[in-house]
Amino acid sequence: MTETVVRRVAIVGGGLVGMLAAIYFANRGWQVTVFEFRKDSRQLEDTALLSNRSINLALSVRGLNALKKPGLGLHEQVLGSVIPMKGRMLHLDKGRLVSHPYGVFGECINSIDRAQLLKLLLDTAEELANVKILFEHQLKYCDFDSGVLVFENHSNGSEVSQTTDLIIGADGAYSTVRSQLMRPVRMNFQQEYIPHAYCELNIPPVTDADGRSKFAMDPNHLHIWPRHSFMMIALPNTNKSFTCTLFMPFEEFEAIKTENDLMSFFQKHFPDSIPLMGAQNLKEEYFRNPKGPMMSIKCTPYNYKERAIIIGDAAHCMVPFYGQGMNCGFEDVFLLNDFLDKFNVDDTKDTNEFRESLDRALNAYTERRHTDAAAICDLAMRNYIEMRSDVVKPLYIIRKRIEGALHAIFPKHFIPLYTMVSFSNIRYSEAVYRWKRQGLWLSIAAAAGDGS
Amino acid sequence: MTETVVRRVAIVGGGLVGMLAAIYFANRGWQVTVFEFRKDSRQLEDTALLSNRSINLALSVRGLNALKKPGLGLHEQVLGSVIPMKGRMLHLDKGRLVSHPYGVFGECINSIDRAQLLKLLLDTAEELANVKILFEHQLKYCDFDSGVLVFENHSNGSEVSQTTDLIIGADGAYSTVRSQLMRPVRMNFQQEYIPHAYCELNIPPVTDADGRSKFAMDPNHLHIWPRHSFMMIALPNTNKSFTCTLFMPFEEFEAIKTENDLMSFFQKHFPDSIPLMGAQNLKEEYFRNPKGPMMSIKCTPYNYKERAIIIGDAAHCMVPFYGQGMNCGFEDVFLLNDFLDKFNVDDTKDTNEFRESLDRALNAYTERRHTDAAAICDLAMRNYIEMRSDVVKPLYIIRKRIEGALHAIFPKHFIPLYTMVSFSNIRYSEAVYRWKRQGLWLSIAAAAGDGS
Repeated sequence: MTETVVRRVAIVGGGLVGMLAAIYFANRGWQVTVFEFRKDSRQLEDTALLSNRSINLALSVRGLNALKKPGLGLHEQVLGSVIPMKGRMLHLDKGRLVSHPYGVFGECINSIDRAQLLKLLLDTAEELANVKILFEHQLKYCDFDSGVLVFENHSNGSEVSQTTDLIIGADGAYSTVRSQLMRPVRMNFQQEYIPHAYCELNIPPVTDADGRSKFAMDPNHLHIWPRHSFMMIALPNTNKSFTCTLFMPFEEFEAIKTENDLMSFFQKHFPDSIPLMGAQNLKEEYFRNPKGPMMSIKCTPYNYKERAIIIGDAAHCMVPFYGQGMNCGFEDVFLLNDFLDKFNVDDTKDTNEFRESLDRALNAYTERRHTDAAAICDLAMRNYIEMRSDVVKPLYIIRKRIEGALHAIFPKHFIPLYTMVSFSNIRYSEAVYRWKRQGLWLSIAAAAGDGS
Repeated sequence: MTETVVRRVAIVGGGLVGMLAAIYFANRGWQVTVFEFRKDSRQLEDTALLSNRSINLALSVRGLNALKKPGLGLHEQVLGSVIPMKGRMLHLDKGRLVSHPYGVFGECINSIDRAQLLKLLLDTAEELANVKILFEHQLKYCDFDSGVLVFENHSNGSEVSQTTDLIIGADGAYSTVRSQLMRPVRMNFQQEYIPHAYCELNIPPVTDADGRSKFAMDPNHLHIWPRHSFMMIALPNTNKSFTCTLFMPFEEFEAIKTENDLMSFFQKHFPDSIPLMGAQNLKEEYFRNPKGPMMSIKCTPYNYKERAIIIGDAAHCMVPFYGQGMNCGFEDVFLLNDFLDKFNVDDTKDTNEFRESLDRALNAYTERRHTDAAAICDLAMRNYIEMRSDVVKPLYIIRKRIEGALHAIFPKHFIPLYTMVSFSNIRYSEAVYRWKRQGLWLSIAAAAGDGS
């Protein structure tokens, strides 16, 4: 046995992905410091107000897989407080409901409360002896070559600096670590806003004849009101409410100026949702809640030598229509850890060897991960049209049924795209490749059928 | 006559484009303040060291057109100190020289010294009563809604703030104004580095039998050594030297580690250039001069309401292979001025009316200009391959000759792409459109010829 050398990692961003990374690196025996710009969300009454992010998320296989790995029971605890959704429930015109299951074998995605999941990760990390979490610390700049980060501590206005072996940027779509990385790194980068905004609304629980609180709609579906150029969705919460999200172009949000405009819009497009939300509640929430923008970000490379790497939304930001943002971010952590293992990063006491192996690991990670992140960003953009429009088209429905039938017969060889993305760990880019090849087979089969 | 109201513009960036904008706005009667991050380049011995930018530039019709407009004689003064280049001189293997003229009517692009042109613009602007230039002022942040900019004055460490009606960001590819704009504006943005770097070298004048200094090569050509995956070019300077630029992938620069590596590389690929540069001079310059990256930037929109707009490299950065970077930036200033005229921005004393007209003008400008900037960025990227590789291919040469012949016969209806870009004011996007249409005609003609 050689003497233990403690490696230090500074994680910028104490959101979901940053905190999972903290747990993984603590598990490796590194000394972890997490710097979070915001206050500790666990001490706030209304977490939604703080984060300005969506209230609930859809957790699927990739995310669950990453939660399982550290062996701290995160996976079980999370599954104890999710609501499984086995398919989409389409709310068509005139209130007609149609269920489209996600998988032929009853696979589910899981609605989970963002604040609750973050609390679990924060509590878990805080229990670990080698993790320190500093809130209200805003990154000012980093010097990557020396490994020095400088923060402003907003709680007392002081400047705090820290020297580290590795900097992980998990600071989200508007990442400061990424901006800083753009100085020494020749980073290809693109960001694209979509014309749509989103606004969150609420469907409260209803009370049944016995005075018990219950869901106003079937809780085991992701509800969608597809209206071609816009849509509304709803995900269930454990308190038996639903969080609805209305997606539509900014101009259409701006065109609704009065309560009358709002009610006639809802009466025309989402009449069945009004009694569920309650007209008064709808009016209050619509005008009070922010109309948030959505964008897609791709960049490469993610790392600067062995010193810094960006993960999660800081590295790849996607529109929310495939429910993969958090899952992909969690998978980043899982993979990064895996690459550190593969390149034997910790199995050396010599600093130069450590640095060289870490450099190779980060380079290999960024090269592989960028391809997959770009693939899921593109798929999410494509699903933006699928969810609000394609889902009601007869040809789409027929193709989905054929794919489902083929998957049931050939479960390993013919897998629908949604299944590969949400219910497997197949690389995103591989999923796209297989999906295109499967489409080709279908075309060939169709053409052969024509000729008979 | 109404009472005069003085409008204020703060121009961030006192480079070529920023200074031309200062002259244009001063001409409109606005109160102009230019904030430049660097020291006054006129007071430095070696301007190349300060700016870390290319030494000479190719000025063509769009740039000249913009210099002409203010009517201050800029155009004439500039033409007095340029060296016209009527075509490309290809240095083929074994030192064979081939001249390709730029236009069938003898059109020239003009080699000009960056520092000299900047001095002319700075001197001219400084003479104007309503222009103030502040050097060593680095922008920290702007509040666009209130029109407040905050700078750090590096000469004394003080903080300087200024309130203005309009903020113009002419602060180059790494623009701070653009970064600041990305906060309130949902800006689509992309930057892409190419794998090549550039390194500047020098061919000094030679002394003839009578002891007079003269050019070592024909000065009225842009010299190119096309070598497929890399190339060298040379532009003449008024002191009878040439500035050479070697473009090649970063890895190939890095592979040249010793003087022997360098000399065998030059002996293999550019043997005719060694006696012109002098072996000792080549060795010194190659290892001393920086290897600079090149990138392409596109973004949209360029403005925030009526308050701010980015121009030049801050708005669109292109690889240097079409010689249009400065020309395009100067054309931005010309067009922006034109849009302010069209929307009668100054013909009102009422602040709200002024703001509304300025808002309309900036929105119209950004919508139109983005299309053209994207077109020239793409053309420049395309020319990156054309210059180093296509120029020596027989089919390329034949097509160029046919295009030239058709242009000579139908000078208004059939115009080669290079002519439209460099020797006309046709919109860049229109030039691309016409070029594609012309290509279609050629294909049709070729097919018809086949059938006869």
